[in-house]
Order: sequence, then C-alpha cells, then structure tokens
Amino acid sequence: MRYSVLGTGLMGTAVAHALAKSGRDTAVWNRTISRAEPLTKVGVSVHADIGSVLDAADAVVLTVLDLDSALETLDGHFAALEDKAVINLMSGTPALAREMAQRLEKVGARYLDGTIQCYPSDIGAAEALINLSGDRAVWDAHKDALVAVAGRSTYVGEDPGAASILDAALAGTFYTAGLGAFCEALAFLRDSNIDPTRPEVALDYWLDLFRAQAMQLVDCVAKEDFATSEATLAVYLAAVRQWRDTMLAAGQRGSIMAAAQQNLETADAAGYGSSSFAAQVLTMSSPVNSFD
Amino acid sequence: MRYSVLGTGLMGTAVAHALAKSGRDTAVWNRTISRAEPLTKVGVSVHADIGSVLDAADAVVLTVLDLDSALETLDGHFAALEDKAVINLMSGTPALAREMAQRLEKVGARYLDGTIQCYPSDIGAAEALINLSGDRAVWDAHKDALVAVAGRSTYVGEDPGAASILDAALAGTFYTAGLGAFCEALAFLRDSNIDPTRPEVALDYWLDLFRAQAMQLVDCVAKEDFATSEATLAVYLAAVRQWRDTMLAAGQRGSIMAAAQQNLETADAAGYGSSSFAAQVLTMSSPVNSFD
Repeated sequence: MRYSVLGTGLMGTAVAHALAKSGRDTAVWNRTISRAEPLTKVGVSVHADIGSVLDAADAVVLTVLDLDSALETLDGHFAALEDKAVINLMSGTPALAREMAQRLEKVGARYLDGTIQCYPSDIGAAEALINLSGDRAVWDAHKDALVAVAGRSTYVGEDPGAASILDAALAGTFYTAGLGAFCEALAFLRDSNIDPTRPEVALDYWLDLFRAQAMQLVDCVAKEDFATSEATLAVYLAAVRQWRDTMLAAGQRGSIMAAAQQNLETADAAGYGSSSFAAQVLTMSSPVNSFD
Repeated sequence: MRYSVLGTGLMGTAVAHALAKSGRDTAVWNRTISRAEPLTKVGVSVHADIGSVLDAADAVVLTVLDLDSALETLDGHFAALEDKAVINLMSGTPALAREMAQRLEKVGARYLDGTIQCYPSDIGAAEALINLSGDRAVWDAHKDALVAVAGRSTYVGEDPGAASILDAALAGTFYTAGLGAFCEALAFLRDSNIDPTRPEVALDYWLDLFRAQAMQLVDCVAKEDFATSEATLAVYLAAVRQWRDTMLAAGQRGSIMAAAQQNLETADAAGYGSSSFAAQVLTMSSPVNSFD
C-alpha cells in the first residue's frame, strides 16, 4: 500500500513519519515544499505537484489544517481520486465530513473521516487514539497503517460524522470545557493565596470522586434513570447559586459556574428539580431553553 | 465532651448519629422536634428548648440549612455560647464565616467553620471528607469527634473563610461545573444516538487523560510556568469555536462550551494566545474581563 499525506504541519509531519517508520511507502505534499523536505531523511518522497502525489497513492491521508482546507486543497483534483481511499485526520464538523463523503462517492472514491485525540508528540505511540468513521472497507484495508500511526485507532461507525460528534462531545465539551472549569477553580485558589499542591486541598480526593461520579452519570443516562435518593438537582442548583456568589464576591468572573447554573435553572424550570443531577441532559438541546 | 447538634435534617441526623455511635454524649435540637425524635433510639437526647441544648454542650455543632440560617437560629442566644466551641458544618460564603467568627469572639466563644464534602449517606465513613478552618484550638480539642463524623476531616487554615473558599473552588467549580460539562457531552451523545457505554466511545481514555492533564495544569499554575511546546491557548480556542459550532448545528445549547470559549477569548485578547491552556487562569478575575 502506498500512502500520500497532504499537509506537513506538526501533525502531518508526525503522521508521515510514523507511516514511513512502520515500513510503508510514503509520499507527502505541502504547499510550502521546504517544510516537507526534512522528511526525506526518513525515506519519505516529497512532491511539489499535488497531481503526482495523488497518482502515486492507494490511500490519500489529509492532514491539512482542517476539513474546510482539505476541500479547498482537493478542489479540481476529485477526478484523480477514483478508486482511491481518502482518509481525513483533521477536525471538521459532522456536516462537512458527510459532504466530503458524498463528493468522493460521486467520483468513485471511498472516505473515512478521522479525528486525532492526542497531541502530535503522541503520534506513533501505543496509547494514542484516532477515532475513524465512514466507509468500513477503507477501515478494514488500512487499519494496520492507522494503528501504526496511533495504537488505539478505533472505528466508531458508518456515519462519516460520527468521529466529529465524538470529538466535539468528548475532546471538546467534556475534556476541554471540563478542564476549563478546573482552571476556574485553580484561578480562585491562586487569587485566594491557597497553594493547590498542599495536601489539605485534597485534589486527589476530588479527581477520584469526579471519575466515580462521571461513571455514575453515564449509567443514569444509559438507563434513562433520573431518580435519586441523594442530593437532588434543586439541591445542586441552590449550592451552585451560593458557590457562584462566593466567587463573584471574591472578584472571580465565574463564567463556567454561570453556565453550569444556567443549565441547572433550565432543568429545574422544566420540572426536574427533584430528579438527579444527571436529569439536566434532558433539557440541554436548544428548543427547551427559555434563557437565551 | 458533650456535643449539641442544632438541626436534624438529613445531614444533621447523620452527624448526630455518628457522634452518638462513637460513644459521645450527644444532644440535638430541631425546630420541628418530631423530626429529631427517632435519634432517641441511638441514645441521643432530644431538646425542644434551644437554651437547654446550648447549656448542655461543650461544643455546639451547627447543621441547620446554611450559615445564614445558623446566624438566625442563634440570634438572641450568643451570650449562652461563652467559653464554648461552635462548629458549623453547613455551607456559607467566606464572608459569612468570618462574620460568625467575629460575633462569637465578642462573647468569648471560639469558632470553627466546616464544609462537608460528601453526601449524608457517607457520614461516619473513613473516606468521607469535611474541611474545617478557623480557631486551631477548637480543631485540636474536637479533631477526634470530627474524624468520627468523617474519617478524612482536615484542618485547612486559620482564616474561617478558607473551608468555604475550597468548597466553592473544588466542590463547586471543579466538581459540579466540571460534571456539568460532562453532562453537556452526554446530552450531545444521547441526541446523536451514540451509546456512551460503547467501548468505542473510550470514556476511560478521556477520564484518564482528564486526570493527567488536571495534574499538569496544577503544576503549571503552582510554578507560574505558562510556556508550552504542545497546543497553544490559541489552538484550543480555534478548536473550541469549531466544537461549539458543531454542537449548535446539532441543536445543543452548549452553555458551558460557550463559557469555556469566553474564558479562552479573554485570555487570547489579553495576549496569552501563544501560552499554554493553563494561562487562562491569569485572566479569570473580573477586572480584566471585557466581555460582560
């Protein structure tokens, strides 16, 4: 199998390097060819002409900035992709992934959309994760190469948008926004002259509790069971109001606390006050929101 | 030592039960005495008169609704607290805790402010946590009783407001708002018909990564080191904008994502775009915010 990687930024370079290192015939193209040239040292062939790099490939791997840029880069070259596999590894919306799949289908190409769930320096590692969705046959044919790029590469479904949905939900909303909430906590401690590394701060306790509670939330949502014998959603809401007052009084902006409060107010207003904290998932889609 | 517990809601009942079970002479008072009566079965004496329950005590433990209610309950009874220890276990703002400490100091009483960091059903357990701050002598004299109530009871500092600050930062902003972000992720998956318990969703991976990254954020903040050789704050901001677009397009409200974006926009506007994600802590207090 011959792989052509389009785009040699930080991520594209790491991907091409991992493919070549795994013994695969690898070519790259980049708009600024000088950025690609260091890869010749590991046996990668560098192309100045996009047509030639596409012709050389069984599979075209897209690692340009994002899926928008990928569509732009391929503009005028779709016909050259007939019978080839196209594997995008850069983020985009689910809608763009589906659009790309349709455009490629029209020219007889097959599409797999991926989202890399790790940093460039993790590429090639056994614990690195890429989620891929779309054409199952492309996954089956190129799974080994994708595992060489990221050891935990996983096929997540036939909808080309599935990888993007998981990316927005987990890398985005859970991981990045959740860590944003943690930053608000750290900022408050810092401005209160409390060293977060002091054992009394008990970060370990809270991180363990967070994990346990997160798994319990998953369980509630999976079973659609929103009853509780512990703190109700209304109890959390009352606490959040007070915690936010405490933060504002201390000069903290508390943006994420305010948003957490808004979510709980919406759920409470919809009648879920005596349900569990997890019940807020039932009122997080736009139509029920009366606050915006 | 004789303990008098004021308030026998879910939490007060659990606290009085744990004190009595540990062999301590325990009395309770509640506005509605019938709610306190079941405690007589475990040897707790139940008082209808607040004056008599205060007189009987070496230490008065407050478990009424919140610190506001505690101030109200004690109104007219401060003189009876001379030479006694007062230990509040219900949440309030740091300012209210300091006010309570000052009022008690005037009548010759000593104050310890606490925040229970677990559910009522966890009271009495070795892994249950109560943070306490204020008069160190009260902590030293009553530490064993507090450990009987919650095995991980911890003295967190002489400022009576310290326990409340930790509560708002960790139980509030990190734990509750962070889990709120996780709920937004679960709501999005649910509305996309993706079962969060499917192994491909890789929740374990994200929970492990979250913990590791949280500890790295703590390290950056403790060292005041906001340089990065991985994704910059501006890279996270670009990703958050796209993730939020994805959520909005799918009909999700994305309140916490929007707040996470606002925090990153603020930090980027202040010139921290090429710093690490952790640098947002530097612009989370109100004065620098130009968005509200």
